Amino acid sequence: MFFQITKAATPLTGCRRQLILRSLSSSTNNIQIEVDNKTGFATVSMNRPPVNLLNLELINSLTRSMKEMEQNKSRGIILTSTSNSVFSGGLDIKELYRPDVQRLREFWTAFQDMWLAWYGSAVPTAALINGHSPAGGCVLATCCEYRVMLPKFTIGLNEAKFGLVPPPVVRISFKNVLPLRIAELALCQGKLFTSNDALNIGLIDELAKTKEEGYEKCVKFLQTFRKVDPVARSLTKQQFRGKDLDDLRKGKQKDLNDFVEHVTQDDIQMRLGLYLEQLHNRKKK
Amino acid sequence: MFFQITKAATPLTGCRRQLILRSLSSSTNNIQIEVDNKTGFATVSMNRPPVNLLNLELINSLTRSMKEMEQNKSRGIILTSTSNSVFSGGLDIKELYRPDVQRLREFWTAFQDMWLAWYGSAVPTAALINGHSPAGGCVLATCCEYRVMLPKFTIGLNEAKFGLVPPPVVRISFKNVLPLRIAELALCQGKLFTSNDALNIGLIDELAKTKEEGYEKCVKFLQTFRKVDPVARSLTKQQFRGKDLDDLRKGKQKDLNDFVEHVTQDDIQMRLGLYLEQLHNRKKK
Amino acid sequence: MFFQITKAATPLTGCRRQLILRSLSSSTNNIQIEVDNKTGFATVSMNRPPVNLLNLELINSLTRSMKEMEQNKSRGIILTSTSNSVFSGGLDIKELYRPDVQRLREFWTAFQDMWLAWYGSAVPTAALINGHSPAGGCVLATCCEYRVMLPKFTIGLNEAKFGLVPPPVVRISFKNVLPLRIAELALCQGKLFTSNDALNIGLIDELAKTKEEGYEKCVKFLQTFRKVDPVARSLTKQQFRGKDLDDLRKGKQKDLNDFVEHVTQDDIQMRLGLYLEQLHNRKKK
Repeated sequence: MFFQITKAATPLTGCRRQLILRSLSSSTNNIQIEVDNKTGFATVSMNRPPVNLLNLELINSLTRSMKEMEQNKSRGIILTSTSNSVFSGGLDIKELYRPDVQRLREFWTAFQDMWLAWYGSAVPTAALINGHSPAGGCVLATCCEYRVMLPKFTIGLNEAKFGLVPPPVVRISFKNVLPLRIAELALCQGKLFTSNDALNIGLIDELAKTKEEGYEKCVKFLQTFRKVDPVARSLTKQQFRGKDLDDLRKGKQKDLNDFVEHVTQDDIQMRLGLYLEQLHNRKKK
Repeated sequence: MFFQITKAATPLTGCRRQLILRSLSSSTNNIQIEVDNKTGFATVSMNRPPVNLLNLELINSLTRSMKEMEQNKSRGIILTSTSNSVFSGGLDIKELYRPDVQRLREFWTAFQDMWLAWYGSAVPTAALINGHSPAGGCVLATCCEYRVMLPKFTIGLNEAKFGLVPPPVVRISFKNVLPLRIAELALCQGKLFTSNDALNIGLIDELAKTKEEGYEKCVKFLQTFRKVDPVARSLTKQQFRGKDLDDLRKGKQKDLNDFVEHVTQDDIQMRLGLYLEQLHNRKKK
Repeated sequence: MFFQITKAATPLTGCRRQLILRSLSSSTNNIQIEVDNKTGFATVSMNRPPVNLLNLELINSLTRSMKEMEQNKSRGIILTSTSNSVFSGGLDIKELYRPDVQRLREFWTAFQDMWLAWYGSAVPTAALINGHSPAGGCVLATCCEYRVMLPKFTIGLNEAKFGLVPPPVVRISFKNVLPLRIAELALCQGKLFTSNDALNIGLIDELAKTKEEGYEKCVKFLQTFRKVDPVARSLTKQQFRGKDLDDLRKGKQKDLNDFVEHVTQDDIQMRLGLYLEQLHNRKKK
């Protein structure tokens, strides 16, 4: 059995909805899944404290969750975080720094598969962005079909600030959401947008004051598909995203090789090392 | 002779402009064409009561009208409806339900040709949307270069609500008008926008309180080309739409086969049958 | 030596910044380049009175300036004009009217190369549009990554008004900045936008009351890249513009032949002749 019912505190306290709380049976326990019996919508909460860094295990859990929910013919998914300050801090830099090349290749292949699963999902998706969402966090958010964000956080693709060139899977879902010129400029600047600015440029769709309110807005969005035939909906989505998905599927090997070559360059490794050192020193204080 | 002067009430009453009123010589009489002698612009009014459903004959008339006007080197076309409540109700479902396959193939080929003629027209076009404009009605409107709409109607591609997947010709002109993300979401939701919402997202260009006012706005738009060389204008338009047009021209046969296969599926036929039954029952009341 | 230090009045009078003023050593002296020692940013001022018409020599100077600055690893470029009323009046029609075909081919090849150099520059660019900017002037402005414009001028691609069909290099940078539908309509109308309208549609990014204020806004924009790795920035920009650049590089010969064929048509030549005559008569008065 892939899911397992557990007794856990309801992350969305104060909800009167009846919830069946499930958590992933994987060893890492890095994902919590709740299904709202009333709406049938699933809430997928990333749960890798403190900041949901995307390591190989969390990425694989995200992919498996999506596949499981598609098999269960879920009618909608809300992606969020158990943290109160971070949606996802992006890729776990430890996967990239002085990597075992075999693990690095496995890591990036897993990221490609996660992107394919979420960007191309048959099930409608909404991101409840209840914290900061840089880099990989922003990729996850833009793979979803709708974004509701809490105030005073930041979201964006800031790879350029680390000397990294965002690979296609990072760029494509972002470009799907924003006007070309805004996307180009934001990526070249490595810009993080505040919740308000993200709303103004269209990177998110709505603001919500609390996680509760954000949840309700995501539910309201997912309910716009109530009267739509799920198969027609899914095929229509494919007509928009199919080319992007096919391009990656066909170019997976090249994309993998490019990524490994880029990340293992000496100057990139030096930058990543400095960054990890800074993080380490900050924690000590 | 393709056109024939007839005595008919002027649809745009109250206009002081001198009009030569012509109606199509086809047997169905489903199109009225007026040419304003002062501006040289032609008004093409769909006239298949009650709601201008696009059957094979109306579609063929629309294509022939465009070709005739191009041959006559018309300087501008305004597409509208003789109805006061519906621009066009979209495809005539009777063409799709329990179809004679030969007629169905002829029908869809005609729709492809209409789309090619209007989306790629050398003559500048404006839609005066004086009523509801769902599905095929929205396709016609978005094939035009400018859209003026009367208040309190709806427009959009609601195919997904019927379990239908909009084929490329339905999608492309819509995508040409709207930001990608808005187009994707609207199609997946099968959403109909109110006149006001349509203005806000850019699906239409202007609102007008009356058909008269809308007509004047369309004329004003078409007059922006007065000082532009018609050949340069037409070739410039081709540079934007040429690829879309070529893609359909080259892929006509495949698009036709895909459409016939999709529409004749058992579950689609069942849905169409239910829809027609509902319509029938509503009329009885 | 390509650059040469000269004593010349500072075009940006009133600036307290220390400037090394350089002017191009080419015979035409049609470009002035200043480097701000404090920021390291270069100001490239077109200086072909009265209206910076783009003839072969000015175009070549623009290309060489960009290449020189890339080799010098410039951190940012501001493109502007020494005129107070015109940024650039566009292509010098004299290059197109009754042309020596060899010179015409050289001219258009030079324009292609200028476009490739500026649209694809590794160095960040901002246009300080301190005057009218029609046709070729608008191409230069849209090749840059940011546009600050002074009020009460006009900008746009008005080729259609002369019966000219904008070739791809004219169109592509424009399409990169604007929503597709706005770009199509503006090109078909040959429309010139006022500074205010250009801001509203996104053709420019900011207005500035004076050249001084505009300069500061350009500097502020270029400083957004201060903390970004230049190589990552440049490669990220390539990911957005690379396809456009490659398309032209591969299609240069065809684009050249198409242009020469289009421009040397009898009716185009007649129009260009009439236009030059009008200009001549206007000057006499």
